Amino acid sequence: MDFQSYFPIWDQLAPAHQELILGSLARREVKRGTVLHNGDADCTGLLLVRSGQLRAYILSEEGREITVYRLFDRDLCLFSASCMMRSAQFDITIQAEKDTRLWVIPAEAYRQVMEQSAPAANYTNEIMAARFSEVMWLMEQVMWKSLDKRVAAFLLEESAIEGSAVLRLTHEAIANHLGTHREVVTRMLRYFQGEGMVKLARGCVEILDEGRLAGLRDT
Amino acid sequence: MDFQSYFPIWDQLAPAHQELILGSLARREVKRGTVLHNGDADCTGLLLVRSGQLRAYILSEEGREITVYRLFDRDLCLFSASCMMRSAQFDITIQAEKDTRLWVIPAEAYRQVMEQSAPAANYTNEIMAARFSEVMWLMEQVMWKSLDKRVAAFLLEESAIEGSAVLRLTHEAIANHLGTHREVVTRMLRYFQGEGMVKLARGCVEILDEGRLAGLRDT
Repeated sequence: MDFQSYFPIWDQLAPAHQELILGSLARREVKRGTVLHNGDADCTGLLLVRSGQLRAYILSEEGREITVYRLFDRDLCLFSASCMMRSAQFDITIQAEKDTRLWVIPAEAYRQVMEQSAPAANYTNEIMAARFSEVMWLMEQVMWKSLDKRVAAFLLEESAIEGSAVLRLTHEAIANHLGTHREVVTRMLRYFQGEGMVKLARGCVEILDEGRLAGLRDT
Repeated sequence: MDFQSYFPIWDQLAPAHQELILGSLARREVKRGTVLHNGDADCTGLLLVRSGQLRAYILSEEGREITVYRLFDRDLCLFSASCMMRSAQFDITIQAEKDTRLWVIPAEAYRQVMEQSAPAANYTNEIMAARFSEVMWLMEQVMWKSLDKRVAAFLLEESAIEGSAVLRLTHEAIANHLGTHREVVTRMLRYFQGEGMVKLARGCVEILDEGRLAGLRDT
C-alpha cells in the first residue's frame, strides 16, 4: 500500500500539489513509547499512521497527563503541525502506544497545499471537527462522569482496541490516560476486583465481567 | 458598518460566492437571555456578532452547564452550523449574554462557498483552531486547577469584559459558567468575602482586591 491510498482526497489534488507532498514526505518507524511530538517545542509535521497506535495527551505543570485522543491506522494527526495554524494555541504531546509506522508530511508543504486547495482545506476542517468532537466528549466525561464510570469505560475501550480481555496496563498508565492519580486508580480497581468485575495481576488487568462494567459505564 | 467589513476574507471571495452569502444573509436582534442555538436540534447557521455578547455552553443530562467559549463583536460562531460538518458530533448551546445584533449566514450557503473556496475553508479552519485552543485551555483548567483559582479567574475575566468592579451575577450564573453547583460557588464567594477580596450583595459581586484575586489565579 502506498501513501496515495492512505490519503482520502488524493485524487482531488492538483498534480503540482501531489508532487509537493510526495517530494517532501518522510517515512518513519518508531518503537512503542517514542515521543513523536512534544508540545510547541517543535513543528514535527502532520503524522499519517500506516500501522500502529498513537496517543495525544496534555501535560500539567506538575507532570500529570490526560489522553485527549488516539490515532489508529489511516488517521492523520494535525496538531503535531499546529505551527501551520496561527490560531492553534495549545501544546499537545504525541507518543507511540505501539510500534508504529507512519508518514510525516512537513507542515510547510501541507500549509502551501491547503492554502490553495479547497479540497485539502476542507479535508483538514473535517479532521479538526472530528478531534474537536473527541475533546468535547472528553470534557463532558471529565465534568459530569464520576471516575468509576470513566475507569470502566476506559477498560472496555482498551479491551475493544486490543481484542482481548487481558490488558497489559499499569495503574500508572491508566491514571495518565484519565488525568488522575495512580492511588485513585488502584483503589478503584481493587473495588472492581472485590466486586468480581476484574482480576488484577502485576502490570495487568483482566476483565471478568464485561456486562457489569458496561452497565456501570452506561448508568 | 456593513456585513462586508465584518467578514475578514470578503475580498478574497469570488463575486458569485459574495452574492450567494449576501443573498441568503439575515439580520437578527435578540434580547439578553435568548437561546439562539440549541444543541443538534436545529442547524441555525453561522452567527456573526455585530455587537453584543454570546456564550457557548454544554449541558449535562442533569441540566448542569459549563461555558465553553464566548463570542464578542466580529466573532463568528461556527458550531451553530455544525450540521455543515459531518465530523462535528457534539451539541453546543448558544445564548445571548447581552442584547445582541448579529447576522445569520445559512449553513448550506456557507458550506457551498467553503467547498469551492480555499480562502473560505482556511478561514473556517483558523476559527475552528481558535475555538479548539479555548476548549483545550478549559480542559486544562477543569483538570488541573482547583475551583478557588477558577472562580478568581472568572471574576477577573468578567470584570475585564464589563470594565467594572461591580458584577451583576448570581451565584447560580457563576456555577453555570464553571460547571459546578451553586452551593459550591456560594461557599467560595463567602470565603473570598471573609478574606476581603470581594463584597457580596443580592445578585451582585463587587471586587475589592483585584491584586489578591489575580495572585490566587496565578499561583
